[in-house]
Amino acid sequence: MKSPIRPTDDEACALARELIATARFAALAYTDMTDGAPMVSRVALVEGPDGAPTSLMSDLSHHSAALQRSPVCSLLIGEPKDKGDPLTHPRLSLRATARVVRHGEPEHGALAEAFLAKQPKAKLYIGFADFALVRFTPLGAHLNGGFGKAYVLNADDLVRARR
Amino acid sequence: MKSPIRPTDDEACALARELIATARFAALAYTDMTDGAPMVSRVALVEGPDGAPTSLMSDLSHHSAALQRSPVCSLLIGEPKDKGDPLTHPRLSLRATARVVRHGEPEHGALAEAFLAKQPKAKLYIGFADFALVRFTPLGAHLNGGFGKAYVLNADDLVRARR
Repeated sequence: MKSPIRPTDDEACALARELIATARFAALAYTDMTDGAPMVSRVALVEGPDGAPTSLMSDLSHHSAALQRSPVCSLLIGEPKDKGDPLTHPRLSLRATARVVRHGEPEHGALAEAFLAKQPKAKLYIGFADFALVRFTPLGAHLNGGFGKAYVLNADDLVRARR
Repeated sequence: MKSPIRPTDDEACALARELIATARFAALAYTDMTDGAPMVSRVALVEGPDGAPTSLMSDLSHHSAALQRSPVCSLLIGEPKDKGDPLTHPRLSLRATARVVRHGEPEHGALAEAFLAKQPKAKLYIGFADFALVRFTPLGAHLNGGFGKAYVLNADDLVRARR
């Protein structure tokens, strides 16, 4: 079968970057602790100060405990509009490793500030003891810009898009 | 820590059922073939004739090949509105096993008819040789009805909701 993957170009990198920069939430795929199967949850998401996607989650959530045990995960970023075929809307399947940043850790202040700048309603619970920030380091991505517009990006492509 | 999971009741089952019945698409978490890590993609989704979530996907997609090798997967069903905190919108993290139903198999006709009834635009490509229907058999689910409204449903709960 012919490969459906197009060569990566500046336009594809810019689209990936835009999807991360405008995200408010994402679908997080993680490894379930009980049986090692893939599971998916919705999480809050913003672009952090260094460009890495950053979430805020409770330790009480199933996915937070799972990420601490098995940090390799994936984020689906880019939401369809209410109208039209949802599969024509661009989305990024990002592979990443997750790292929890708790209250009192040196990075927490800057990450919390960046998070609240984009999601001000989170100030109601970001101070709770069980809520921590989670920073995702990109490893690579599949970008789908609509039918027939598929790209495979590596971590350098995602950095390149920031220049 | 206090468990955030509420006892499952009829209301929770009915909400899970409604999320499946009204879905147009979902985030699919699957096991990547290359390294066994969890990955997530957007897929089309409708409620099939027997209540099981049903998708239509190309064999050229990364996730289709992966599901055929490792059919245990998860679907995130239930999309936020444009306004408000996206984490207050109900969503279902469904655990399932995937089974591909190809052109020429006995079930294909009824599944294709049910799919097209809800996603008529798919008639443009449902006949393509590389497009197959995928039926998801539910194993259980996590239901999140908004902050503090979490439930764990088993396969029977999801069936009960159909009565």
